[in-house]
Amino acid sequence: MSDAASKPKVYKPRPVTGFPEWLPEVRLIEQQWFDHIRRVFESYGFCSIETPSVEELDVLRAKGEVDKEIYVIERLHKDENDKSDARLALHFDQTVPLARYVAQNFNDLVFPFKRYQMQRVWRGERPQAGRFREFYQCDIDVIGVDNLPLHFDAELPAIMWEVMNGLPGMENERIRVHISNRKILMGFLESIGVSDEKTCREITTAIDKIAKSGLPLFYQSIREIFEKLPDHDTQEILVKMQEFGRIADLYKSSDELRDKLTHSEFIDTSHQTIREGIEELCFVMDNLSHLPEGAVVADLSIVRGLDYYTGTVYETVFLDDPSYGSICSGGRYDDLASSYISKKLPGVGISIGFSRLFARMVDQKKIDTSRKSPAEVLVMMPSEEQRPHIIALCRTLRENGLKVEMYHAAKKFPDQLKYASRKGIPFVLITEEDGTHKIKDMITGDQSEVDPKTWTPPTRKALDHVA
Amino acid sequence: MSDAASKPKVYKPRPVTGFPEWLPEVRLIEQQWFDHIRRVFESYGFCSIETPSVEELDVLRAKGEVDKEIYVIERLHKDENDKSDARLALHFDQTVPLARYVAQNFNDLVFPFKRYQMQRVWRGERPQAGRFREFYQCDIDVIGVDNLPLHFDAELPAIMWEVMNGLPGMENERIRVHISNRKILMGFLESIGVSDEKTCREITTAIDKIAKSGLPLFYQSIREIFEKLPDHDTQEILVKMQEFGRIADLYKSSDELRDKLTHSEFIDTSHQTIREGIEELCFVMDNLSHLPEGAVVADLSIVRGLDYYTGTVYETVFLDDPSYGSICSGGRYDDLASSYISKKLPGVGISIGFSRLFARMVDQKKIDTSRKSPAEVLVMMPSEEQRPHIIALCRTLRENGLKVEMYHAAKKFPDQLKYASRKGIPFVLITEEDGTHKIKDMITGDQSEVDPKTWTPPTRKALDHVA
Repeated sequence: MSDAASKPKVYKPRPVTGFPEWLPEVRLIEQQWFDHIRRVFESYGFCSIETPSVEELDVLRAKGEVDKEIYVIERLHKDENDKSDARLALHFDQTVPLARYVAQNFNDLVFPFKRYQMQRVWRGERPQAGRFREFYQCDIDVIGVDNLPLHFDAELPAIMWEVMNGLPGMENERIRVHISNRKILMGFLESIGVSDEKTCREITTAIDKIAKSGLPLFYQSIREIFEKLPDHDTQEILVKMQEFGRIADLYKSSDELRDKLTHSEFIDTSHQTIREGIEELCFVMDNLSHLPEGAVVADLSIVRGLDYYTGTVYETVFLDDPSYGSICSGGRYDDLASSYISKKLPGVGISIGFSRLFARMVDQKKIDTSRKSPAEVLVMMPSEEQRPHIIALCRTLRENGLKVEMYHAAKKFPDQLKYASRKGIPFVLITEEDGTHKIKDMITGDQSEVDPKTWTPPTRKALDHVA
Repeated sequence: MSDAASKPKVYKPRPVTGFPEWLPEVRLIEQQWFDHIRRVFESYGFCSIETPSVEELDVLRAKGEVDKEIYVIERLHKDENDKSDARLALHFDQTVPLARYVAQNFNDLVFPFKRYQMQRVWRGERPQAGRFREFYQCDIDVIGVDNLPLHFDAELPAIMWEVMNGLPGMENERIRVHISNRKILMGFLESIGVSDEKTCREITTAIDKIAKSGLPLFYQSIREIFEKLPDHDTQEILVKMQEFGRIADLYKSSDELRDKLTHSEFIDTSHQTIREGIEELCFVMDNLSHLPEGAVVADLSIVRGLDYYTGTVYETVFLDDPSYGSICSGGRYDDLASSYISKKLPGVGISIGFSRLFARMVDQKKIDTSRKSPAEVLVMMPSEEQRPHIIALCRTLRENGLKVEMYHAAKKFPDQLKYASRKGIPFVLITEEDGTHKIKDMITGDQSEVDPKTWTPPTRKALDHVA
């Protein structure tokens, strides 16, 4: 009832920085990505869970370091007198909610608990190039009670390899999974007399930064760490770290790794922690031997910054774009939910930074955006009198599993064809005056007579994005 | 590295009221619901979009009435000096974001724009029985430029009917779609001399409440409305409203409706607005005649409370549980985005209150929660030596499209079977010492020899929840 002529000056809406949003043709591929990831996760028996977008602020704050990135939520017109509600905040990852979920539902879950979770998370960062404040993460974790077999440490990289190599648009990307085991480095540090937890953490942080900042800065960091510690000879430590650097190489198989380390003069393979780390890493590599050569490497320079990892650690990189950093990463941890439950819950998990990866492929125009509609066929409407017949025709096609748009009005055929073309609908069904039907392939322009009761698109497999 | 014995007192996590969360076996069915809804929406050529969870507060506030339900978000440690960011808030529906999206991307969209959207929305209500503060809505809308054919008003109820009748667990629910056209009531009010917008709105609100509060309260509301208006004879209006009540009946077909209204002495079918309303409603009913009798009724008592509806309106109810109210509802509006764009964008849409409906079916134990895992088959591990063989076996099954969990350790067979049973995995694959394979059906207990290269579950159709 409003009248365009009398409208007030309009307000041009703008996108909110850091909160991605896609056009339909891009969203269609995003859905294909989610479908593919879900299909792979489920093919390994992982179940889906979703947690609320919010947790109590105290639950989130337990992981103090990201404090400043937390978004709290508040009712616009809250009752100032009402203190009944705990303060709520949007979750910034899916690990804290998983810990709360597992502790809360402990008696209803079957362990090892294999779950995947694909939800939005929020980080209240200052908007800057490539940083999202709302984004999807796709996580898988396996949680055990008291212990968790190494089997799962080997299963996750195989899953990630399969995920990464099936994403539409990623066909030409060369991906490599790097795997290490923190016990090797931790054991090495122990063996050279460094066992103080804080110092170990500072060293792993420094190692984690080598790829970004380079070796000279790394050695400077090590110097700074040990110059504060009078018990250690900084120069000697530096020599030892350089020695470790010589074995921190890439290994394509457990044989290569075992061979190099047992013959290395720089590492004491009889040291218990080191030996455990090597054995675990070799087990993981052996169980991934079915993957193509070079898909997975043991890489002792990988440590991951987060200090809750205790064994296997993973990173996945673009071979031709190392500056992107890790596409998906994760590792093994000793105890998921120690603040909530007195059971020990070891786990292993990997997380894909979905939105950042997807946005990269969109920016690089590597995804196909030719289809603005999921419809596989547009059914043309020849005349108003034919409407009941056309409705029935569409129903028949849908019953055969097709995605069908019925054109809404008896416009001229060229107009209807133009509509199909603009939406990127690949086929058009034409009903002739004599009652026969023709399919027009909108890409080749070919037309052929068909029986709508049995017709399916010749390229159906390629079109059907819900497998 | 933390030690269970030395742990501090644990904090028992509690669910946040109003934010639903499901166990894996319930979530699995929730996924089936989303998959089904998406499949139906796409089978009619609707494309998916997603918008950010937040909008600028000013954008949301344009729809003033829900002000107090808005959740604003704020960085926990924001810079007090930084005023660069607009205030952001979580969206409370998907219509306001749709309007902003369509205006913003107007030149990149193809009209009529048919989109579906299945996202979480947030309302900062006081928690109370059955009220969620975070929930999923599933919306479809069709947006035209300048005009939008009535075709789409008829398409939406067919889609909703198909959605509602295919949701797992809803098999025994009797659903009915009620359709009306507000032009009939508006024209009737005009014809009895009531055309003031505010009064019309008060009357529709009162009619909308009849189902809840009953007729006596309705007549009282009408009396109160008109006693404030000296131009009208309240008694006469009441008589007229009673007359309208006599035609505000249920009609199974356009013939029934047209017949009753043209022979009614209470309604002037030559009045232009009334006539338009009847013609539109009849068109919609005629185009739904393929649905089972009683699936759809014309119901002149339906008006919908929201005053932006201008023509067709819908409600969908449980025949055997009218107190639930409307499962999904919607209607036609004249202009989607008048505050953002000077084009006139008429639309028609329906929204399913997904989470409330799903929670009802869970509460009533009408959904099957026997499967805690998506895995169709558990592959048993006979011995550690067999591990490489078992890994390869799982790969073969996955390549055939099966969802497979590999048991992680060479435990005793009864333990492995118990695991399958606890997770609700319907089949177990056993590798015998002689290298042959058997499938055990966990429900019937039957075992039979199979070739893993070709085996697929006999009840695969029923199990496969991703179509």
